[in-house]
Amino acid sequence: MIIGRSAVVGKEGAVKAVDPSRNEQIEPAFGLASTAELEKTCTLAEQAFDTYRETTPEQRAKFLETIADRIMDLGTTLIERAMQETGLPQARLEGERGRTCNQLRLFAKVVRDGRYLSATLDSALPDRAPAPRPDLRLRKIGLGPVAVFGASNFPLAFSVAGGDTASALAAGCPVVVKAHSAHLGTSELVAKAVQQAAIECDMPEGVFSMLIGAGQTIGQNLVAHPAIKAVGFTGSRAGGVALMKTAAARPEPIPVYAEMSSINPVFLLEGALTSNEKLAQQFADSATLGAGQFCTNPGLLIAIESPALDKFIAGAKEALAAKGAATMLTPGIHSAYNTGVAKLSKVEGVKLIGQGKTSEVPCGAVAGLYETSGENFLARPELEDEIFGPTSLLIRCRNEAELVAVAEHVEGQLTAAVHATGADIAVAKKLLPTLERKAGRILFNGFGTGVEVAHAMVHGGPFPSTSDSRSTSVGASAIDRFLRPVCYQDVPAELLPAALADGNPLAVPRVVNGELVLK
Amino acid sequence: MIIGRSAVVGKEGAVKAVDPSRNEQIEPAFGLASTAELEKTCTLAEQAFDTYRETTPEQRAKFLETIADRIMDLGTTLIERAMQETGLPQARLEGERGRTCNQLRLFAKVVRDGRYLSATLDSALPDRAPAPRPDLRLRKIGLGPVAVFGASNFPLAFSVAGGDTASALAAGCPVVVKAHSAHLGTSELVAKAVQQAAIECDMPEGVFSMLIGAGQTIGQNLVAHPAIKAVGFTGSRAGGVALMKTAAARPEPIPVYAEMSSINPVFLLEGALTSNEKLAQQFADSATLGAGQFCTNPGLLIAIESPALDKFIAGAKEALAAKGAATMLTPGIHSAYNTGVAKLSKVEGVKLIGQGKTSEVPCGAVAGLYETSGENFLARPELEDEIFGPTSLLIRCRNEAELVAVAEHVEGQLTAAVHATGADIAVAKKLLPTLERKAGRILFNGFGTGVEVAHAMVHGGPFPSTSDSRSTSVGASAIDRFLRPVCYQDVPAELLPAALADGNPLAVPRVVNGELVLK
Repeated sequence: MIIGRSAVVGKEGAVKAVDPSRNEQIEPAFGLASTAELEKTCTLAEQAFDTYRETTPEQRAKFLETIADRIMDLGTTLIERAMQETGLPQARLEGERGRTCNQLRLFAKVVRDGRYLSATLDSALPDRAPAPRPDLRLRKIGLGPVAVFGASNFPLAFSVAGGDTASALAAGCPVVVKAHSAHLGTSELVAKAVQQAAIECDMPEGVFSMLIGAGQTIGQNLVAHPAIKAVGFTGSRAGGVALMKTAAARPEPIPVYAEMSSINPVFLLEGALTSNEKLAQQFADSATLGAGQFCTNPGLLIAIESPALDKFIAGAKEALAAKGAATMLTPGIHSAYNTGVAKLSKVEGVKLIGQGKTSEVPCGAVAGLYETSGENFLARPELEDEIFGPTSLLIRCRNEAELVAVAEHVEGQLTAAVHATGADIAVAKKLLPTLERKAGRILFNGFGTGVEVAHAMVHGGPFPSTSDSRSTSVGASAIDRFLRPVCYQDVPAELLPAALADGNPLAVPRVVNGELVLK
Repeated sequence: MIIGRSAVVGKEGAVKAVDPSRNEQIEPAFGLASTAELEKTCTLAEQAFDTYRETTPEQRAKFLETIADRIMDLGTTLIERAMQETGLPQARLEGERGRTCNQLRLFAKVVRDGRYLSATLDSALPDRAPAPRPDLRLRKIGLGPVAVFGASNFPLAFSVAGGDTASALAAGCPVVVKAHSAHLGTSELVAKAVQQAAIECDMPEGVFSMLIGAGQTIGQNLVAHPAIKAVGFTGSRAGGVALMKTAAARPEPIPVYAEMSSINPVFLLEGALTSNEKLAQQFADSATLGAGQFCTNPGLLIAIESPALDKFIAGAKEALAAKGAATMLTPGIHSAYNTGVAKLSKVEGVKLIGQGKTSEVPCGAVAGLYETSGENFLARPELEDEIFGPTSLLIRCRNEAELVAVAEHVEGQLTAAVHATGADIAVAKKLLPTLERKAGRILFNGFGTGVEVAHAMVHGGPFPSTSDSRSTSVGASAIDRFLRPVCYQDVPAELLPAALADGNPLAVPRVVNGELVLK
């Protein structure tokens, strides 16, 4: 474990990572954290907060960039260990490493740019009647130490130095990561890189730590600790809801940003079904990408009956049949996938359309596509349960009204996709207000897999896709999750933070007396 | 009650308002809402949402301004009824009416300005390798229908058409108000004004409704209703926490913005105690303003022992002795105040410094100032309990370290004030990081009473002062509470919302490829 500037081997038992492609444990063993180690970690984070949040934008940006550099320095050691622990292929992991470093560098830019501060100034009006107006200045500061729970499906980009960590550090919040048990070695390598960067950049001890704990105890205790002021989590609905409950039950409740469960409805409108010959192949490619283990995997297809739909179904069957079984992240995920598929296949009114190749590897996921009627889907809430992996359900609707009813029926989603041509615009227009209420991202003529790290990205959405629809966990706005506003009224110039000082020494955009001023 | 375009008399029993200055009921009786009426109201709000949120900025701004006009049209009828129901004086209520209308007009400006949309565009990069970047555009939309619970202490500015309602309507969210039982007649008059404005401005039915219910049942049911997507509340800690629990226990949890409990520490540093002759009088004026019934009332004074402090205490005793007993808002609040004061006076180590004049009116609050040692305060958490009314507790610290320890010990606050001169800057500088973590607003050489409606205002703070430190309930940023981001990826031009269209037809500030562009 990494606790501040120390490397610590926990003494509360030990665990090993598992190679899912062989279903065998990998060396070495990792020691588990005690309550005392948790306490020490949280105290260090708390003590670091005031110093860390007042580092200059340049210091914080440089720290983020140095983390990226130190991760790249890990070279093939990191990629090889991640391959072993996750069963993900080399190219995917190299791509993910690039994304991780790009995220860190994006947040360095966000910190230098200073828009996130929401600097706002209202001048004093000493002569105003009946009462003078004081001098008011607002900036945002970090919430405090943030607990980050890594995701199994993005061992780099949503784990130890992933989006949650990068955005929390950018916001000026110390971070305590709970390592995901599915990739402990990968986590240790990255945590050491972050620690190294913190030392090089002279950051306060406690700005970053990483704990290892078996089961849920350390995680729940971390969220319950008074020093922790916010939580970032990517994982299952059950896991996220458990953390939400713990956070809400604290003497001081804290925000939880849990990205959980989404089946990402894809609406296949008739024009697109008719004109896009590649649609079935595109669907099969998206559904099986990363063994279907993307948060934005297309779990639900919705279309109105037509000859074009029948053609799509035939094409999807053929495209899936060519897909080999890919190794899933862990034996547990693989087993849950098979249970989910078995349950779906037994629901009345659900029939199999087509499947991928049978598995020849221990944790191989066989892709599948099932179908049911709109009527049946609307009547059976269990058909909305997420199956984490490469299985999708097609809803065959009788007419446009039923298609819209299905859209209105689904729970909150990360993404909703519409495949449409000009001929479909009228139907798409009817769908749009519903999709805006249901999803964080609406996309046309594409699939949700592939989440761009950009300024305009939203990787979030209404419950249960996340615990907080007001936020995104990917993209520049992810920093907003870890900030709160503070107003300074008639504060003497020598005590004002630089972002609010006269003359705007940090050259940040500010709203002055209601008008946005760029510098 | 106002349910959409209808005026409805509830049939589930009836209640009357009470004149606290005479402790007598006032005519007429108000009928209470049934479950069916609640259901109808929420359904209307839900149905109005898609239409209302897509009204143009100009239409929505005009609606807010028309509400302000219709409230002014109520003239003395409104002021007289509010005086009867609250015991507050005419000048205060006229001032509060002005503030209420200014808030509505401020949010009209906010809507026209369009910064709240956070419009963000990332251009497509079709030739990027290895994968092209799609066209991404982000705007914020309303969360959905908002339940607003009026405050007893601001019968106009934080009630039916107060800050929560104004900011939610500005965000594009329909509003369902639960009227505060302390000012039912005032609420009815204002609700009719809002209804009239909605009809005049051709807003969808259901954009605004107001229910009346006894006890907590209708309120809890309102927060639990699936159509409601956020809650605005100003009131007691117990009331706010109860709504937080209900909201968190829903199948789909929703955000609650509860502004609850704050004792607003005021640090009196030695330089200020020595040089500001008027400080004791300023304190007494602030502590008794509005019978001490402000959220930002100075409930806690903290100072280091010194001759200047003794002089302040003598002055405060004298200034309080001249203060008459003012009528509190309700017999219940008056009775809770007396209970709180009695409890405080019996805590070991607490002694009375001075009191105001004895009450000659039924619900008159006698002002009071007590003192205790820093050591005693740090040892007894019950000394932090808010006493809603004109009683304050002075903490006499032995030294600077104890002063800082007291600052670190207090719970989250709406405001923290520091009285300081140049000679105190070093101590103030030590206090500042703690105050930033504890309070939403830090003010120098003033008292928190008097909350400016401005762009840079923060009326919020860490728990228990509010349920969500990321937000403010006063000022332009209050609109952010009711918004969530939606990303549009490769959405055809004819389906894009105007805020994100090419050419920026709404002329709103937008972030384009990471750069802020004003128009």
